[in-house]
Amino acid sequence: MGLDRDRVSKQIDFLEQLDRLKLVLRQNLVMDESRRENSAEHSWHMATMAMVLFEYAPQSMDLLKVLKMLLLHDVVEIEAGDTFCFDVEANKDKEERERMAADKIFGLLPPDLNGEFRDVWNEFEEGDTPEALFANSLDRFQVLLQNINTRGGTWRIHNIEKSRVVQRMLPIKTGVPLLWPVVLDYLEEACANGLLRDDEGITVDHSKGTP
Amino acid sequence: MGLDRDRVSKQIDFLEQLDRLKLVLRQNLVMDESRRENSAEHSWHMATMAMVLFEYAPQSMDLLKVLKMLLLHDVVEIEAGDTFCFDVEANKDKEERERMAADKIFGLLPPDLNGEFRDVWNEFEEGDTPEALFANSLDRFQVLLQNINTRGGTWRIHNIEKSRVVQRMLPIKTGVPLLWPVVLDYLEEACANGLLRDDEGITVDHSKGTP
Repeated sequence: MGLDRDRVSKQIDFLEQLDRLKLVLRQNLVMDESRRENSAEHSWHMATMAMVLFEYAPQSMDLLKVLKMLLLHDVVEIEAGDTFCFDVEANKDKEERERMAADKIFGLLPPDLNGEFRDVWNEFEEGDTPEALFANSLDRFQVLLQNINTRGGTWRIHNIEKSRVVQRMLPIKTGVPLLWPVVLDYLEEACANGLLRDDEGITVDHSKGTP
Repeated sequence: MGLDRDRVSKQIDFLEQLDRLKLVLRQNLVMDESRRENSAEHSWHMATMAMVLFEYAPQSMDLLKVLKMLLLHDVVEIEAGDTFCFDVEANKDKEERERMAADKIFGLLPPDLNGEFRDVWNEFEEGDTPEALFANSLDRFQVLLQNINTRGGTWRIHNIEKSRVVQRMLPIKTGVPLLWPVVLDYLEEACANGLLRDDEGITVDHSKGTP
């Protein structure tokens, strides 16, 4: 049986382009705080998290699909760059930028693989299936662990309030409900230790605006 | 249903320790040659290779198992460090060092996960099953791509001969036979371009030692 050289060369070209994800820096730090984390090693860490925490998935689901999602979820950043979750301005056109990046990067592959990988990436982005909910939750939980282990990390550096972090972590409440109390404990402890700005005490009085 | 806090804390402890793999540097470079590759991002790249090249697996096998192997295959380096494949001295006690490291790092997990992950890691190391052969082949193929894309990379830096590289790549011949001609073409081209020292012309005369 012969090898389709044109096909294999497209596959290798894609794999060579993936190398660039090692150069895309995220906002958060690696745990020894020596440098920022890159999106390739982040994706590896996420995939190992799925393996370790799979038992907390709230329903029967396909681990292989979860791993594929996590391994591919950030490859669009090769073209679109990493968008910091609390950067309101950059998030306005994130979806459009990343869709164009997905066209370009997955488009390097032969059509069948392009279709398969694009479907996996779309499913993660849409976040509707059990696998996508679980994978998205882990993506939040990984940042939590990085920040907890780097004296507050991006929360501290960007002076983020607890209420915004709770909002950001909310997918975990439905995606991996068993871990939600763990998340809340971490955030409470982070506030107590001054790693995260506690704005829960600030009660805004909305009563005047409503009859 | 309650959460076993002791169990989840062991799992999180393991995941936090995994972060250290991002700091383990391999000999080869990332493709823009700006720095050495680390073992975490290497593991991610390997896992994506398995997804992209799975169709070349020579028999029916379990992709999920292959991915688990590739995601875990280097975690022992957190304790044992990376051992350069052409460093004869360091390779003498590599097996022993890595087995002790596996005891330590997988031992952080609850017993059931420790057992499961250790089995996956052992299977990769022993290299006997179809999945382990395939995964080991990709581990060699990834280095080939890194070196080809970094002007010879470790071959050039350490002045390695073609015959040693062919020896090193040999698992691909049985693990992913369809890709073997691609490997040989790459090596020939590398020699032609001076990225790899061609010692094939040097014929050593062994006839005198044998009657």
